[in-house]
Amino acid sequence: MIKTDILIIGAGPTGLFAVFEAGLLKLKCHLIDALPQAGGQCSEIYPKKPIYDIPGFPEVLAGDLVDNLMEQIKPFQPGFTLGERAETIERLADDSFVITTTKGTKHNAPIVAIAGGLGSFEPRKPKLENLDFFEDNGVAYIIKDPEVYRDKKVLIAGGGDSALDWSIFLADVAAEVTLIHRRNEFRGALDSVEKVQELKNAGNINLITPAEVVELKGENSLESVVVQKTDTKENIEVQVDNFIPLFGLSPKLGPIGDWGLEIEKNAIKVDNTLDYQTNIPGIYAIGDVNTYPGKLKLILCGFHEATLMCQSAYQRIFPDKKYVMKYTTVGGVTGFDGSKKEAPKAVVKTID
Amino acid sequence: MIKTDILIIGAGPTGLFAVFEAGLLKLKCHLIDALPQAGGQCSEIYPKKPIYDIPGFPEVLAGDLVDNLMEQIKPFQPGFTLGERAETIERLADDSFVITTTKGTKHNAPIVAIAGGLGSFEPRKPKLENLDFFEDNGVAYIIKDPEVYRDKKVLIAGGGDSALDWSIFLADVAAEVTLIHRRNEFRGALDSVEKVQELKNAGNINLITPAEVVELKGENSLESVVVQKTDTKENIEVQVDNFIPLFGLSPKLGPIGDWGLEIEKNAIKVDNTLDYQTNIPGIYAIGDVNTYPGKLKLILCGFHEATLMCQSAYQRIFPDKKYVMKYTTVGGVTGFDGSKKEAPKAVVKTID
Repeated sequence: MIKTDILIIGAGPTGLFAVFEAGLLKLKCHLIDALPQAGGQCSEIYPKKPIYDIPGFPEVLAGDLVDNLMEQIKPFQPGFTLGERAETIERLADDSFVITTTKGTKHNAPIVAIAGGLGSFEPRKPKLENLDFFEDNGVAYIIKDPEVYRDKKVLIAGGGDSALDWSIFLADVAAEVTLIHRRNEFRGALDSVEKVQELKNAGNINLITPAEVVELKGENSLESVVVQKTDTKENIEVQVDNFIPLFGLSPKLGPIGDWGLEIEKNAIKVDNTLDYQTNIPGIYAIGDVNTYPGKLKLILCGFHEATLMCQSAYQRIFPDKKYVMKYTTVGGVTGFDGSKKEAPKAVVKTID
Repeated sequence: MIKTDILIIGAGPTGLFAVFEAGLLKLKCHLIDALPQAGGQCSEIYPKKPIYDIPGFPEVLAGDLVDNLMEQIKPFQPGFTLGERAETIERLADDSFVITTTKGTKHNAPIVAIAGGLGSFEPRKPKLENLDFFEDNGVAYIIKDPEVYRDKKVLIAGGGDSALDWSIFLADVAAEVTLIHRRNEFRGALDSVEKVQELKNAGNINLITPAEVVELKGENSLESVVVQKTDTKENIEVQVDNFIPLFGLSPKLGPIGDWGLEIEKNAIKVDNTLDYQTNIPGIYAIGDVNTYPGKLKLILCGFHEATLMCQSAYQRIFPDKKYVMKYTTVGGVTGFDGSKKEAPKAVVKTID
């Protein structure tokens, strides 16, 4: 059982910044995220897109913002359970919570902060018989570790940035990469499209368009897929170890919706007059996942909500202590790793 | 009369960021600040101090944060009335406000956002007869434009960073710089103290310690000051054009306190359940100047408050329009100066 002070569900920018604010209060955090890496949408959906409305950054790439936040929270040594979705919650006799993931990992904390963004990103799946059988058995919707595909025969389906970028990346890793798409046109960054064209011309990527997978074959695991040209209806059987349909991710509130929290418009209602707590004491919701009068789904609002939440969490954990806020400019930042950052102190010195 | 959409009182980080959020809504802003430059405390009190709790910045100098914000809001061409304190407010028949400064500059807008921080920074003044008479007539407490002192004989009093840093700066500008302090010890950044020692050794700064000014003399403007050595009680008359006591600034809510706003603990009460509006419709208070249950006086909270305030201001100005928020990652940022920043568009392209 993983134990911590604040269990944060969702490792997007809001969840990450909560680690920093909790750390200033000497509270430890552990983050759970269904995605294989921290950063939420910023890392998974648009790492190379510039954001213009983060205060103090005239322009910052979403991926860089996440890198900065990871650097900022490093002194507070957060724990991570990645690639697992928070599934069930129970309340123990001591009023603390136990959260169990899809893979059965259990986490215990007195405070839960849901920073789940628009929800956990669920892959859009192709409609194919036996798809379930081949999941994690040759079929994957998210590439968690590209090394899994080393020297394998891989077929990627999709026409967007993910399909293009992973085809480029795996062309160097896999034994064989086939990219198929139901149209001839791809939609993505210009250099990605051009790079795929080059790799195709050089024979490093097999391209089949317009086409879709119509059948999966294999005894115990995936052995081949049947690709149908959508124009000629011709069927082509391709020997593959892996089929990776990259049809996008769509956010779903998911199991959190069944935790007894008050839900409104697919978001969790919170008390914005004080601390962004939900209807269940000890469970907070911060960032895009929450709703309240005047709510704006902006990263900068999540930062503020995370900060006020941490103060409230501190009061819940230590009802008898009075926390006196110290500015980081004055008190510096002392990490759990013993690191210390602070402004150079003024000297008192005679001039003679 | 200066006319704008949102009149922002206080050009600290919160006020500056409000310009950006207003700009996204195509609302124009004008800022009034008693200090001679934008940035509030960050520029005036601790420009070289690192801040550690701005989300996305593991460390940022206060002055750099202000520079970044100025860069971020540049496309929205804010107006500035600097070095003048907002003094009085009246409401016109059309429900808009007129704010007049200490120097009589008048500003008109339908919305007022008070982003006054801890208040306007009022200099601590020495107790001296005739001080009033010599103000702006040889005596100044804030150096607005160092060029005023070119080739003048200047006496600076004080023992902190401001006194040290301005002595160093003016040693190159003024004809003569005398630095006095009531103690022998100075308190400041190590390199500032060392630099003053060097300049004193080289004869570029006259140092008199421990000492204080006990008398101001002059017919129409300042001609000399009498400095008393506090140890020997010896009086020394120094011929000077300017006397600049730099004894620190202390924040005062000031005239805003008399505008009919609900005040609690020297801060303005606002409705944090919605939009940070005060008890006077159309007047908002954002950042350190406001108070509400759970309030934290942090820059990042001011950013959030500014953002929600702008949405509410938009609704007040355009009660019939429904504003649909567009993410900057999607819609980009279009400045009033015709500038446009946006993410590179995806291409749709055949690969063959």
